[in-house]
Amino acid sequence: MVTKLGIIAGGGDLPLRICEECEESGRPFFVVAIEHQADIDRLSRFPHAVIRIGAAGKALKLFKKEGVRDLVMAGKVSRPSLAQLRPDAEALKFFATVGKGAGGDDDLLTRVANYFQDKHGFNVIPIGEVLGPTGVAAGSLTTTKPDAAQQADIDRGLFVLKTLGPADVGQAVVVQEGIVLGVEAIEGTDALIERCGNLKRPGPGPVLIKIAKPGQDSRVDLPTIGEQTVERVSAAGFSGIAIETDRTIIVDQARTVAAADRAGIFLTAIDP
Amino acid sequence: MVTKLGIIAGGGDLPLRICEECEESGRPFFVVAIEHQADIDRLSRFPHAVIRIGAAGKALKLFKKEGVRDLVMAGKVSRPSLAQLRPDAEALKFFATVGKGAGGDDDLLTRVANYFQDKHGFNVIPIGEVLGPTGVAAGSLTTTKPDAAQQADIDRGLFVLKTLGPADVGQAVVVQEGIVLGVEAIEGTDALIERCGNLKRPGPGPVLIKIAKPGQDSRVDLPTIGEQTVERVSAAGFSGIAIETDRTIIVDQARTVAAADRAGIFLTAIDP
Repeated sequence: MVTKLGIIAGGGDLPLRICEECEESGRPFFVVAIEHQADIDRLSRFPHAVIRIGAAGKALKLFKKEGVRDLVMAGKVSRPSLAQLRPDAEALKFFATVGKGAGGDDDLLTRVANYFQDKHGFNVIPIGEVLGPTGVAAGSLTTTKPDAAQQADIDRGLFVLKTLGPADVGQAVVVQEGIVLGVEAIEGTDALIERCGNLKRPGPGPVLIKIAKPGQDSRVDLPTIGEQTVERVSAAGFSGIAIETDRTIIVDQARTVAAADRAGIFLTAIDP
Repeated sequence: MVTKLGIIAGGGDLPLRICEECEESGRPFFVVAIEHQADIDRLSRFPHAVIRIGAAGKALKLFKKEGVRDLVMAGKVSRPSLAQLRPDAEALKFFATVGKGAGGDDDLLTRVANYFQDKHGFNVIPIGEVLGPTGVAAGSLTTTKPDAAQQADIDRGLFVLKTLGPADVGQAVVVQEGIVLGVEAIEGTDALIERCGNLKRPGPGPVLIKIAKPGQDSRVDLPTIGEQTVERVSAAGFSGIAIETDRTIIVDQARTVAAADRAGIFLTAIDP
């Protein structure tokens, strides 16, 4: 039996993609879009409600009223300041118990997922269970492939990301000729790309390396790229993108690879 | 006997400060200012020459001709792209031998220092030997002190910097209410401050945490702050700055602390 899917929607294209997937497969769904994070304009044609990020109690009530059992958390959620949070009674309960002492972003989201699951009986599922497997084989998906120098940049980027991993800060870095141009934190990948486009040096363009953090919970915020990422990277003068063989969501892979091929940049998957 | 000091000048106020110190103490000196990095306008009133970053042979010849024995490397040096480098014969020799396979920025600078010292008999000395001890006691230098939440931000920043340390990427992070707003890479501290000023949330302002990398060579690129740093941080709405008790150069400490006190922000030293 196909159950109704609850979608907690943060930023980016991914929540939209999940709604479309549900529509295509005929699976019933209900979206709770987080204010100031989700792309509400584009989500509003689906069954949805908009809530403040601190309104956990309202979200629970909505999902229960809609008869939702399975939940998926999709899209980037930036941690708000305490002033922006204005937690309702349920959110306060969360912070008083499991949310206390959360370190990085993912750690907090994992605790949110656990809270929905353990305290309220929802079944929080990985995005891959809705969109199909997220993995790709190692190697280039594009006609263009990284040369030896670009491969060295990918290796350097990987090393930086793995080193930084335990601090739970960012998923992406940009490297050019062995020089780390930028490390992602709260600004997100789009802002990182734009900034590094302005910092790049003459010569072969930089490489964007984006991987999941070590031990990252696959129910929350997996690295996501799509056609838009390719376009931004290309406009910034990069030479390519490296992602993981697993745990990277490519929103509409065919379109994304086609865009990279048109732009003459590589998109390559590595086994970190 | 006071020997003539050779100064390899990168960006920022530090090379200027060293020239002034030499002038005040009557120590003879000669500046080799790196094009596109050093503030040549302000250095040009001192005995100096301007060289391309790849002109290592020319720098050596100048220092030898000037009778320099002690060398100090001061100021930020951004690694150029290979295209910008245009190495002369001496620089090519460096890259063919010790420079090969240098990882991060500091690793390369350390190799440059060793090259001047071991291959050419110069005595490369830490900046502290010219400007006096760089250490300060643990605790706040300002009237304003970090509160418990700001202290937690400092601790989080320290953890991120120590975790990232082995990757030899950046010296600074910005944290607000436990959220890492930004991680420094090639853009430098000034650009990091500006960016995080635009990313900050309502509530108490972010904290800049800046420390040397673990095992960083004290002859090259120690973290440096000054009045200008304080002014930038204050303009961006930060609440304070945390530095190390050792291995941080405060350019004109009295002026810097006075500026922080005027702005009502804290400047605190921690023992990492």
